Amino acid sequence: MKLNCDLGESFGSWKMGLDEAVMPHIDMANIACGFHAGDANVMFNTLSLAKKHNVEVGAHPGYKDIEGFGRRSIAHSEQEIINLMTYQVSAIFGVAKTLGVTISYVKPHGALYNDMMANAEVRHAILKSMQAINHGLGTSLKLMMLATANAEQHKNEAKQLGVELLLEAFADRRYTDEGKLQNRKIEGAVLSEQDMLQQVVNLQQNGQVITESGKALTIAADTICVHGDNEHGVAQIKQIRAICQP
Amino acid sequence: MKLNCDLGESFGSWKMGLDEAVMPHIDMANIACGFHAGDANVMFNTLSLAKKHNVEVGAHPGYKDIEGFGRRSIAHSEQEIINLMTYQVSAIFGVAKTLGVTISYVKPHGALYNDMMANAEVRHAILKSMQAINHGLGTSLKLMMLATANAEQHKNEAKQLGVELLLEAFADRRYTDEGKLQNRKIEGAVLSEQDMLQQVVNLQQNGQVITESGKALTIAADTICVHGDNEHGVAQIKQIRAICQP
Amino acid sequence: MKLNCDLGESFGSWKMGLDEAVMPHIDMANIACGFHAGDANVMFNTLSLAKKHNVEVGAHPGYKDIEGFGRRSIAHSEQEIINLMTYQVSAIFGVAKTLGVTISYVKPHGALYNDMMANAEVRHAILKSMQAINHGLGTSLKLMMLATANAEQHKNEAKQLGVELLLEAFADRRYTDEGKLQNRKIEGAVLSEQDMLQQVVNLQQNGQVITESGKALTIAADTICVHGDNEHGVAQIKQIRAICQP
Amino acid sequence: MKLNCDLGESFGSWKMGLDEAVMPHIDMANIACGFHAGDANVMFNTLSLAKKHNVEVGAHPGYKDIEGFGRRSIAHSEQEIINLMTYQVSAIFGVAKTLGVTISYVKPHGALYNDMMANAEVRHAILKSMQAINHGLGTSLKLMMLATANAEQHKNEAKQLGVELLLEAFADRRYTDEGKLQNRKIEGAVLSEQDMLQQVVNLQQNGQVITESGKALTIAADTICVHGDNEHGVAQIKQIRAICQP
Repeated sequence: MKLNCDLGESFGSWKMGLDEAVMPHIDMANIACGFHAGDANVMFNTLSLAKKHNVEVGAHPGYKDIEGFGRRSIAHSEQEIINLMTYQVSAIFGVAKTLGVTISYVKPHGALYNDMMANAEVRHAILKSMQAINHGLGTSLKLMMLATANAEQHKNEAKQLGVELLLEAFADRRYTDEGKLQNRKIEGAVLSEQDMLQQVVNLQQNGQVITESGKALTIAADTICVHGDNEHGVAQIKQIRAICQP
Repeated sequence: MKLNCDLGESFGSWKMGLDEAVMPHIDMANIACGFHAGDANVMFNTLSLAKKHNVEVGAHPGYKDIEGFGRRSIAHSEQEIINLMTYQVSAIFGVAKTLGVTISYVKPHGALYNDMMANAEVRHAILKSMQAINHGLGTSLKLMMLATANAEQHKNEAKQLGVELLLEAFADRRYTDEGKLQNRKIEGAVLSEQDMLQQVVNLQQNGQVITESGKALTIAADTICVHGDNEHGVAQIKQIRAICQP
Repeated sequence: MKLNCDLGESFGSWKMGLDEAVMPHIDMANIACGFHAGDANVMFNTLSLAKKHNVEVGAHPGYKDIEGFGRRSIAHSEQEIINLMTYQVSAIFGVAKTLGVTISYVKPHGALYNDMMANAEVRHAILKSMQAINHGLGTSLKLMMLATANAEQHKNEAKQLGVELLLEAFADRRYTDEGKLQNRKIEGAVLSEQDMLQQVVNLQQNGQVITESGKALTIAADTICVHGDNEHGVAQIKQIRAICQP
Repeated sequence: MKLNCDLGESFGSWKMGLDEAVMPHIDMANIACGFHAGDANVMFNTLSLAKKHNVEVGAHPGYKDIEGFGRRSIAHSEQEIINLMTYQVSAIFGVAKTLGVTISYVKPHGALYNDMMANAEVRHAILKSMQAINHGLGTSLKLMMLATANAEQHKNEAKQLGVELLLEAFADRRYTDEGKLQNRKIEGAVLSEQDMLQQVVNLQQNGQVITESGKALTIAADTICVHGDNEHGVAQIKQIRAICQP
């Protein structure tokens, strides 16, 4: 079970995330592409850091909304989603290539990720952009999305456009019986450290989580999403890393 | 003598330039990359238009300054210039590839262009970015700059980094005896229509311009820069096109 | 019946609207405040133009979304709406004062206007911001909104926060029987020039419009919204002005 | 000797500065106005915090350059400087008024501050904007600038436009014999903690600093600029506060 983490989210003079502390302990770095966070300099530095630690790199594109950090849904046409995807993925793909690094996957950010999971039209637009990029740049980027009960349907949708999926699970979030993340507003939706570690073990050993009602639910995830926002997050990443040895 | 024109400079809901009217009459479209003008949607539409008319496409990157349209010089370190270049050129390179279009050259915009011509450090940073992009993306983009009396020196600088130059002349600007563009504030610096057409003929037939003091000066240009901001500009482009048949 | 028009919507190097041609023919200029269009220079120039023609000035604030021109709804908390309103209205209020001009009303723009009409919480947040501004700056700005069948309810909501409303009608839009604007996607939703002029006469003389089903509906409007985007719009404004003499 | 500090420099999801920790220990808060840092929400929160601690508030306007944090000089015409000043100061003036807070002074930020000190034309434009704001809003905002050997000349320039100055000294910077701040690139330009505290005592008791060559130089400052970027800065502020009792 690989660990993936959102990185490269600083912007101009503002720092976000402990990228240097996190990078040695993860397998996959989702690097912001400048529309919701990151900029050309932050991107270059984060790609360099990933290269130094031999970490696999994914593009982490979002809605163009710096002040809202890409967390606010903004209505787009299909072509507009394709355009914001191809622009951002192309930018990081090329910059990475100047460093000898090959981008291997794409994970949409924030509201774009949520809209992808909730809205088939957004998901289709994203897949069409992936198809176009893979064809145009002669590559085969995978698309990372949430491992849910609809994983097979999502894989089929992706397959029709020649795109392979990477499915991720969340270490620190309680799942509903339907395999969704429980709403953060519900008490206990974010797991305690002990429960989080137990969930990681369960995912790693059995490919399962215990849902809100206490059922064992199979979650076929390729990777676990971890967070390096602060010292506490970095400490948790190290604990998760101890469970998920590469 | 090829005609090149800055296009794709609309932004969001704001239109700039008569791109549809200009595209059929030019050879090379310099398309904005989103930092000083253009956005992901404008870029996609302009690339599609260039493809339709079989027009060669160049990246037209600038300083990140939408409100100033990239016309204001902003101090950057060498690495920052490399980063803004590689980001923008990569973005348009990839988006173009999704349309089956191959970017073949780069022409910096506005203040970045002026700083490139005036400042050896900026020019070197731009050339280093071109080298990195060409190496990273396995391509051989050329760099367009002003044809001046220093053209040989510029070509040598570029050659050291494996970059080929494209040199451009201006149809409508009076040249100094040193082969620079006369300052716009000087009366007559922008040529009358008749003088402009005469200068195009002179460039096309003799590779020369008549300078401010009346001397014939050799300008070894590969291309002439034309402007399609308004109906008058489009009319001039057609007249220049009549002289410079492909 | 006064004529109001959105102006000051240029941005940086991009022009929008024929402000100089429109200003002599209107009574009220809704001037953009920099979040969705306009900038400090455009605002200054547009205020100067309004002053020259003795046109009443209103603030025209929007969501902070330059690339989307404020036409895309973005979720905000109540306090965030209050903050974006007070910031923008304060900015134009003060800049106008440096020119000896007093802002007298506020008309939200685009998606913020639509959300205000459709969503009681957004409307309440806007009214709270108006109350705070009026109290803080010792003024009594009115709030412009759409004249609908709910006008009395809206007036009561506003009155509770000490805010007076200005109600506007649209010259060129067909109304539903419920007093809403018919969806633009429906054929005939945007009136022909002849029907538009007839509607203006009907509004001016009888305070009525003929709805989609042919009923006469009373619309108690203080002002008609006109558009000066292009030469055709300016010509229409002159025709409407001929009907609605000040 | 009052303590002033730049605050409200967070932006969207990015935090900068320990505003909550700093505010109780300072006299004057220079609050960013949204062009180089801060946004409508950050401004509201910072003004609320200043009000809670009875801290005097000044506008802290900068060049419109979020990504560069206002630290890069950008050429502007006189009218453009007036416009960016009046827009930003008006915005914070009005927002503060909605909280019952009255802005009492203006301190330009970063490159705008440096250009004001180095360039008489920029300084004149800023003073003209202050005159226009004071006249338009019926207030008497003071302008804060660096206490230098040219303080009398600066006061005269300001007086001609009816503007009063506030002069600030830097606690932690070595002064040249000409009363300028020594270039940061020179070793020792930023004082050790002990030297910094000694300089504060000297400023407080004698109105003097010891220059690079060891001379005693009179610096008639009204206020000392302190920095609350991190825990170390906050600790220093408390030490300086102990010397400069209100």
